[in-house]
Amino acid sequence: MSAQSLASRPGTATRPIGPTVGMVGGGQLARMTHQAAIALGVELAVLTEDPLAPAVGAGARCVQGAATELDSLMALAAGSDVVTFDHERVPTAHLTALQQAGVRVVPDPAAKLLAQDKLHARRTFAALGLPVPDFELARTVAEVTAFATVHGWPLIAKAPRGGYDGRGVFTVADAEEARAVLADHPGGVLVEPRLDITCELAVLVARSTTGETAVYPVVETIQEDAMCREIIAPARVDEDLAAAARELALVLVEGVDATGLVAVELFVTADGLMVNEVALRPHNSGHYTIEGCATSQFEQHLRAVLGWPLGPTTLCAPAVVTVNVVGPDDGSDPARRLGFALGVPGAHVHLYGKTAVPGRKLGHVTVCGRDHDSARSAARGAVELLTGERS
Amino acid sequence: MSAQSLASRPGTATRPIGPTVGMVGGGQLARMTHQAAIALGVELAVLTEDPLAPAVGAGARCVQGAATELDSLMALAAGSDVVTFDHERVPTAHLTALQQAGVRVVPDPAAKLLAQDKLHARRTFAALGLPVPDFELARTVAEVTAFATVHGWPLIAKAPRGGYDGRGVFTVADAEEARAVLADHPGGVLVEPRLDITCELAVLVARSTTGETAVYPVVETIQEDAMCREIIAPARVDEDLAAAARELALVLVEGVDATGLVAVELFVTADGLMVNEVALRPHNSGHYTIEGCATSQFEQHLRAVLGWPLGPTTLCAPAVVTVNVVGPDDGSDPARRLGFALGVPGAHVHLYGKTAVPGRKLGHVTVCGRDHDSARSAARGAVELLTGERS
Repeated sequence: MSAQSLASRPGTATRPIGPTVGMVGGGQLARMTHQAAIALGVELAVLTEDPLAPAVGAGARCVQGAATELDSLMALAAGSDVVTFDHERVPTAHLTALQQAGVRVVPDPAAKLLAQDKLHARRTFAALGLPVPDFELARTVAEVTAFATVHGWPLIAKAPRGGYDGRGVFTVADAEEARAVLADHPGGVLVEPRLDITCELAVLVARSTTGETAVYPVVETIQEDAMCREIIAPARVDEDLAAAARELALVLVEGVDATGLVAVELFVTADGLMVNEVALRPHNSGHYTIEGCATSQFEQHLRAVLGWPLGPTTLCAPAVVTVNVVGPDDGSDPARRLGFALGVPGAHVHLYGKTAVPGRKLGHVTVCGRDHDSARSAARGAVELLTGERS
Repeated sequence: MSAQSLASRPGTATRPIGPTVGMVGGGQLARMTHQAAIALGVELAVLTEDPLAPAVGAGARCVQGAATELDSLMALAAGSDVVTFDHERVPTAHLTALQQAGVRVVPDPAAKLLAQDKLHARRTFAALGLPVPDFELARTVAEVTAFATVHGWPLIAKAPRGGYDGRGVFTVADAEEARAVLADHPGGVLVEPRLDITCELAVLVARSTTGETAVYPVVETIQEDAMCREIIAPARVDEDLAAAARELALVLVEGVDATGLVAVELFVTADGLMVNEVALRPHNSGHYTIEGCATSQFEQHLRAVLGWPLGPTTLCAPAVVTVNVVGPDDGSDPARRLGFALGVPGAHVHLYGKTAVPGRKLGHVTVCGRDHDSARSAARGAVELLTGERS
């Protein structure tokens, strides 16, 4: 379907508007996608069980229902020109059913599965010849131990499905701990060596339904308690490594026929780059693009899923740093301290409208600056004012 | 009221959120204010008679009613921490009544009147010692003719109230034409010489309820058929003139005790700078700030009316140009050509969700670039693709 036919879809409004994008999930990614949609005259409809979800609070149209129920997905699709995602928790069979009913699903369910099943992803990337850590599916303690015999203890065990922000990832020191993890994962776990990681990188790639691609600058992601805390753009790595990371990400995205926005997370090790995992949607590692790049990841995702031309991905400043706002331990709400944080010159504060819970991502702050240190210091300073905690 | 007490106002939501800003009017200025409000976790409620107004389409909370009715204004105020504006068409008496009922109105009705009554504005600016064109209130043909005897024909006659985008402004060549204009304006018209204008400038000034001020770069506004068509930042004038324009705007804003965002429109003539008129709200001449400045005018207005610290106003690029998208003569909808315009690298397209009508402002395109010519050429190119018309 062309941009023109999308825009002229009849009967959806009493006033001429652009196309409607249906997004499964109504969290902060959908919220920021809605912000971007406003400028383009695109309507965003979100499927969520929560009528107070971040995207709904921002004004996206709410289709209330569960992403795990086909009827709800069909209801979203009925009012949308294309269906896309702000999370991974959607059954592949339902997505295939949507497609069979004539719904445009972007990315394709087969590609989306790479973000849903870590084992499938590793196997697919390895088959494409992309560098991945050694891995096995281990269903028994004996299989875990056999892997450890080759690669050493401790090792990392991951639930193939359902994990995010460190959930479903375990450091396993010995057979006893392996037994405990397997008890909770009867289908087996993905085991891999505990790598000696120099740093973690992320590369955003947008791929339109037309096949056009746009690759963003390579960024560093700083993790803490297995949750992304900071994004540093551009990554402080040498140019050859950055170029290799971009190339690898592009090869991956085209190799798996992904569409929409894709975040490729990479490890830098003594053995070079390795693919960690991918997300086929806007991603925390791309929040810096709102102020930091010529085209934000959210607008780019909309362009990509609607088959519109992609925008330039150039950085707007020599250094851009994003620091996440995570709910402080005392349970207080950073929104109540916003007035203080706005006093930090150049701090772009984004709050997600979520209830404050310790450890929960509630927002982020981006600072564009002349160098990494000053931008990082300002962004951290603003986050400290929001949370009342020293970073 | 402090930012903290605003943020903790009880009983307005089942989930902790920030303050609510009530905006009179639901047009494109309110729409873009809503976009900015999302990031800050601020709720925007808009008073509009049109449930499909641009801001409502973007997700702002709609209070349906007329800005000319006190009951409607009271309904807006009842759910808001502060009341502000996206247009001028509000009776001063109603605003005073709101204040007497304890509602915070920003800007103050007395200051707002400067944007509502051109004669009052001229008199106030003249009394402050600011440079303004010669002017008189002329109620009769004899008074118009007397003014022309001193200043020459043709002269400019303006309806003191209600005009915008060239409406209510008349070029009067002789006594006969004066008679015709006066017939439609029994209260009299503001007459002024037809000035020999080198260019028109605009300076945005934000002034917080705390008294803090922030002045934006001076921009050139290019008018066509008395409607602003292009904004060129920074203005192509020498540094002394730009500094004088900024100083003049700041003196004006502080002199009239304006709060919120103020757009000061200036003429450059052989006799130097002259104040043309002011708007006490976000303004077309500030749309370039969304991508072009460290803080957009819409976020800045929210900060100012909520008493939060103001953000930096620095330009993000050597040149930023905004070109308005005006409904083409053939009545076609530029939204249907969006896919083409997005192919212009770096074109930031903003569509307002309005029904396409010839001559109506339907959106704008901003391009940040290395120099004025390339940015202007790209922005114009994108607008031509949207409208199907050569500029």
